[in-house]
Amino acid sequence: MKALGFIEVSGVVAAVDALDVMCKSSAVEFVTWERKLGGRMVTIIVTGSVSDVTEAVECAKKNAQAPIMASNVIPNPHDETLRMVQLSASRMTRQA
Amino acid sequence: MKALGFIEVSGVVAAVDALDVMCKSSAVEFVTWERKLGGRMVTIIVTGSVSDVTEAVECAKKNAQAPIMASNVIPNPHDETLRMVQLSASRMTRQA
Amino acid sequence: MKALGFIEVSGVVAAVDALDVMCKSSAVEFVTWERKLGGRMVTIIVTGSVSDVTEAVECAKKNAQAPIMASNVIPNPHDETLRMVQLSASRMTRQA
Amino acid sequence: MKALGFIEVSGVVAAVDALDVMCKSSAVEFVTWERKLGGRMVTIIVTGSVSDVTEAVECAKKNAQAPIMASNVIPNPHDETLRMVQLSASRMTRQA
Amino acid sequence: MKALGFIEVSGVVAAVDALDVMCKSSAVEFVTWERKLGGRMVTIIVTGSVSDVTEAVECAKKNAQAPIMASNVIPNPHDETLRMVQLSASRMTRQA
Amino acid sequence: MKALGFIEVSGVVAAVDALDVMCKSSAVEFVTWERKLGGRMVTIIVTGSVSDVTEAVECAKKNAQAPIMASNVIPNPHDETLRMVQLSASRMTRQA
Repeated sequence: MKALGFIEVSGVVAAVDALDVMCKSSAVEFVTWERKLGGRMVTIIVTGSVSDVTEAVECAKKNAQAPIMASNVIPNPHDETLRMVQLSASRMTRQA
Repeated sequence: MKALGFIEVSGVVAAVDALDVMCKSSAVEFVTWERKLGGRMVTIIVTGSVSDVTEAVECAKKNAQAPIMASNVIPNPHDETLRMVQLSASRMTRQA
Repeated sequence: MKALGFIEVSGVVAAVDALDVMCKSSAVEFVTWERKLGGRMVTIIVTGSVSDVTEAVECAKKNAQAPIMASNVIPNPHDETLRMVQLSASRMTRQA
Repeated sequence: MKALGFIEVSGVVAAVDALDVMCKSSAVEFVTWERKLGGRMVTIIVTGSVSDVTEAVECAKKNAQAPIMASNVIPNPHDETLRMVQLSASRMTRQA
Repeated sequence: MKALGFIEVSGVVAAVDALDVMCKSSAVEFVTWERKLGGRMVTIIVTGSVSDVTEAVECAKKNAQAPIMASNVIPNPHDETLRMVQLSASRMTRQA
Repeated sequence: MKALGFIEVSGVVAAVDALDVMCKSSAVEFVTWERKLGGRMVTIIVTGSVSDVTEAVECAKKNAQAPIMASNVIPNPHDETLRMVQLSASRMTRQA
């Protein structure tokens, strides 16, 4: 896992659309999503090289159907940050 | 799995009605639903050929009881997008 | 499973009251309920013959304590619709 | 299980207080509670004889700390109503 | 288990702070917390002697960072009340 | 476990960013997060020496992308406070 990219949107329709836009724009992979925080908010986390993640997040901001409520790129995530994100990802996989 | 169709409505009554309308309008299959994001929002995801999915979503927008809050058709979903949707679907099946 | 009847109310007190009214008005059976979508909304789903389900839903609208926010009768649910409802029902039973 | 009594309040502090008031006012037993429907709403369900349940619910309305948002007494619950309430109760017990 | 003390605050930061204040003010023990009722509400339940629990709750009301939205002391909880609280506590422990 | 540091923000994007800022500012470790209380609120809990935790929380308040809604440093948490936090942490790990 290298850089991490984050987007936050309202609703699942907007979230899947934004993920699809990101994955088609550059070589990023889907890591995990968080979606039960209330207020219909969905967070999508992707990973890849710094340039790929940056391009994916920029592309979602330009081309996704719905407005991006929040976004971020962490080029070099701290080990503790990676651990937190991987806990979310393994929880998602294990429940599936 | 080919194309993906998405609709978002308020409440379970509206969601089941919209799914029924979609499945009766064309040869789409129910993939998964997401319903614990708050604000009573329910997302229904169906799959089928591009034309079937398009017709189903259009039909829901015209004939469903309740207003469709958001909708989308992804004709050729990226592999990562399919993986995300399948995680939701297998989670639903496994909990049932 | 034949016809499906749906009512949506605010809160569990209203939901159990409405179910009791429906079951006493005609020969319907409780299928499942959904109740974690936020905003205190509860959806009750019952099944039976078309006339029994129609009578039950009408009776709930007239005689239940609290206002019915949404309701529906699907006389001949599509197989995919039944599959979605049965996933909710088996989830409820399995968690109990 | 005989009659069913229901109260709905805002928050867990109010819910436990109301349950304690009910159980001290008459010979009712705690059946189950529902508390994840959003908006801080908590529903408490008790059982006992019709007169005990009626007295408990009246007592909660008079003496509980917080206002009772909704309440009900079902003197002779339908079998399907009992089944729904017992599913909630066995889920609570099984998760504990 | 003797007396029960309850406080309700907004958010986890305020809840842990209030628990720490209570435990440092008198010989109370943490029993359970409830935190998924929506609206960011957190309920903390502690136990101990009547005087210890009373002092802890009063101390939280005076010295905790955030305002206490609701509080209660039940000096002699009914057996059914204890059973409800212990179900919450064993659920918390079992999920951990 | 020594001191505990707490921050509360709105959304997962803001939460991961704040954790990354904290971990890069001083030698703190990620303990747990709570994120299903409604209203999109996320709480991050870190641990370390008193000075490291203090610096991490101050740094998040200055340098994190999104405003910090609430924060706290408990230099010497009570054993019961630690027990509550560890229950949250082991729940997070066990579900992953």
